[in-house]
Amino acid sequence: MPEVFDVIVVGAGPAGEVVAGRVAAAGLSTVIVERELAGGECSYWACMPSKALLRPVDLAGEVSRVQGLRLDGPIDAGAVLAHRDTVVSNYDDSGQARWLDSAKVTLVRGAGRLTGARSVEVATADGGTRTLTANHAVVLATGSVPVIPPVAGLAAAQPWTNREVTAAHAVPDRLVVIGGGVVACEMAQAMRGLGSREVTMLVRGGGLLDRVEPFAGEAVARSLTEQGVDVRLRESAEKVERPEPGGAVTVRLTSGDTITADEILVATGRRPAIGDLGLASVGLPESRPVGVDDSMRATGVADGWLYAVGDVNGMAPLTHMGKYQARIASDVIVARARGEADDRPSMRDRADGLGAPQVIFTDPQVCAVGRTEAQARAEGFDVRAVEYEMGQVAGGYLLGDGYGGRAKAVVDESRRVLLGVTFVAPGAAELLHAATVAVAAGVTLDDLWHAVPSYPTVSEVWLRLLEEYGL
Amino acid sequence: MPEVFDVIVVGAGPAGEVVAGRVAAAGLSTVIVERELAGGECSYWACMPSKALLRPVDLAGEVSRVQGLRLDGPIDAGAVLAHRDTVVSNYDDSGQARWLDSAKVTLVRGAGRLTGARSVEVATADGGTRTLTANHAVVLATGSVPVIPPVAGLAAAQPWTNREVTAAHAVPDRLVVIGGGVVACEMAQAMRGLGSREVTMLVRGGGLLDRVEPFAGEAVARSLTEQGVDVRLRESAEKVERPEPGGAVTVRLTSGDTITADEILVATGRRPAIGDLGLASVGLPESRPVGVDDSMRATGVADGWLYAVGDVNGMAPLTHMGKYQARIASDVIVARARGEADDRPSMRDRADGLGAPQVIFTDPQVCAVGRTEAQARAEGFDVRAVEYEMGQVAGGYLLGDGYGGRAKAVVDESRRVLLGVTFVAPGAAELLHAATVAVAAGVTLDDLWHAVPSYPTVSEVWLRLLEEYGL
Repeated sequence: MPEVFDVIVVGAGPAGEVVAGRVAAAGLSTVIVERELAGGECSYWACMPSKALLRPVDLAGEVSRVQGLRLDGPIDAGAVLAHRDTVVSNYDDSGQARWLDSAKVTLVRGAGRLTGARSVEVATADGGTRTLTANHAVVLATGSVPVIPPVAGLAAAQPWTNREVTAAHAVPDRLVVIGGGVVACEMAQAMRGLGSREVTMLVRGGGLLDRVEPFAGEAVARSLTEQGVDVRLRESAEKVERPEPGGAVTVRLTSGDTITADEILVATGRRPAIGDLGLASVGLPESRPVGVDDSMRATGVADGWLYAVGDVNGMAPLTHMGKYQARIASDVIVARARGEADDRPSMRDRADGLGAPQVIFTDPQVCAVGRTEAQARAEGFDVRAVEYEMGQVAGGYLLGDGYGGRAKAVVDESRRVLLGVTFVAPGAAELLHAATVAVAAGVTLDDLWHAVPSYPTVSEVWLRLLEEYGL
Repeated sequence: MPEVFDVIVVGAGPAGEVVAGRVAAAGLSTVIVERELAGGECSYWACMPSKALLRPVDLAGEVSRVQGLRLDGPIDAGAVLAHRDTVVSNYDDSGQARWLDSAKVTLVRGAGRLTGARSVEVATADGGTRTLTANHAVVLATGSVPVIPPVAGLAAAQPWTNREVTAAHAVPDRLVVIGGGVVACEMAQAMRGLGSREVTMLVRGGGLLDRVEPFAGEAVARSLTEQGVDVRLRESAEKVERPEPGGAVTVRLTSGDTITADEILVATGRRPAIGDLGLASVGLPESRPVGVDDSMRATGVADGWLYAVGDVNGMAPLTHMGKYQARIASDVIVARARGEADDRPSMRDRADGLGAPQVIFTDPQVCAVGRTEAQARAEGFDVRAVEYEMGQVAGGYLLGDGYGGRAKAVVDESRRVLLGVTFVAPGAAELLHAATVAVAAGVTLDDLWHAVPSYPTVSEVWLRLLEEYGL
């Protein structure tokens, strides 16, 4: 006999948990299926542990720029790793399980796969099978998995991914990083800051962080280099060898060079976790993300019972965007279940189309929302971009010696609104939300002019950007 | 022979400098009159040095909350005071004078006073007199001066004001602070953090920081107390004695207690600097701030040639608001001089009426914009307030052990916009600008819902506040 619920959520990461929590709070019977830890990648192997590793490194950087303070020796990596263990609840999800229980969400541990309309089969840990049927909706929230590039010997060399590096028991003396994106940059910074003697980044392209404004990747490359990371652009691994498990890794590069390291981290991107999800059973392709409309409903499935939120839909592989999409999906599901209007302002995705906000926790931090100048021009907007050196802002100067950074605003001249904003500076993370509000709400420059930044905060860069524009 | 300029600015603080710079850039001949240092109170004796003193204290607090880092002993106060000297350019304004020169603004050093319509007489440092006449406008930007309360013996005891405490050559072993406002709290925190053994605050009212939400003052009082500051509420000085100049100060309290200290800081508010400004010569009262309309033009003066910006107009004694008013005044003056439209969106003050943003750099930092709940209710708005504990935000938790704070949003139910927002948490300064944008632009809650805070930043408190509201 199938077990019947109003809503079945497959995947208990941040996005899945938000859907489950919200639909259950609205009174729908809800089950969530998770084959690993409830809480998901973000809680155990991504955002949370990575930021726990980066915070002391970041703070040590701040201390080094301020007169009158000095650290008592290098960072105690053991203490940081122990704190990381606390942050990830020692990789124990019983707290999350309790929360789900208190939220009246049934947790089924096992691997869920679609077997047809409204039907999910779960292969449970004990080798059994449970069949779940949904009255109203099935929501896919299985996230993403790292891509391991087809480099000879790489997979066999047991490379680290985001999981192993964020869960490291010790800081490797020598680390090779393949990739130049967010995980690569953040983890190179963390491991170097926590004591790695040699960190080498192999970056296929001509720069780091190629999805944000070019000056951001340049600033991070400069900073990583100053911190002692060997950033090699236009360089790739050709062959990887690790003769003894756990032993040294040798990486032969396309340039002909060879590097020997203690660990190798692969950070070359992620793909939606759709393998083994049974998409074919409902007529969907198994080779690409689950496409959705702006209410997160899967396109190409009859009767509209299937939804997808978070990384699995391929829109924006960011925890906060997954949770945002989850809020939309859950509100729509509840409304449709009740036969109520399903088009309230909160029930349509606007943020993904504007360009998702993101903070990259390197030093300097890279904070961006909306479109880059190049994206905006490519899309045909009437663009004007203005930039400002953040070291000239009094609030930045007060943060420490040699404080510097850059801000850029991309203006849609036809509407006098912001299409995108980027801040690259130490500790800039919390600057971003003002930009996110301005971009999301389409606040005009004339209105921004009356939003007076407090003196002396770094936010005064807003005034400078508007002055640069000519206000 | 009077010297004739298009615009005369009296007072070369931040507000006066902004007016002078902008009208000169527009091609008007401009003179600025300053009897002390060009750059004003903010640059030498307020914002800049106070934040230079607070930054290491603040950062030491952050370090104490993060695992794996430890400071090498207490803060080196000597190094901090030396850095403060750098921040204030060793109380030398030649850099400012050069900037004014490059901006084509004539600097006249001396005390300016109105002597009639469009006329300013300057008593110069060498005992001479210069008479200046304005074609278009005279702008008063003389700032404010500290109020010394009429306590027996206080004035004779050579108390510190914001000037002496921010310019201190050494950290006093024992400090008494009269007052519970911004200067009192910030300087109690700074001096205690830099090594004062005994800091006692005498606060007449029942709490600190009485212009912001009550929980803010409570949090700062709790924190100061934990840091070892003796915060005495409903307590006042009755008599002050300092028998020997530079010697110990004895303060008899209304409660009957007596305190002995090495210095006494008076921080009981400021009043507009209008003494000796010649207001009577143009028909204005000499007993209150110079009232202005929303283009910063003084009311009650024929022909509209007189303007007042910054503290002297009594609206918002904050550097950034003075500079904002200065931008308005200068644009209006230029437009009127040219016979152009003087009512563009940038030419009317909207921000003062909404409630000026402010960051108080204590630990926790207090950041507020708009109206408090009590103010909004008193003004008759249809108010709903929501609050959220910031320690529950992942981005806060990651900043350090025991991170906590509170956010509050005051909503105008009739329009679903924010009337006011307050954040009280360590390092919260840069959180404020998002609120300032939302309040200034009247962004609706429905639009804010699509402004997705990046994970894991503290800005995610925005999501929590909206969820608390019911979105």
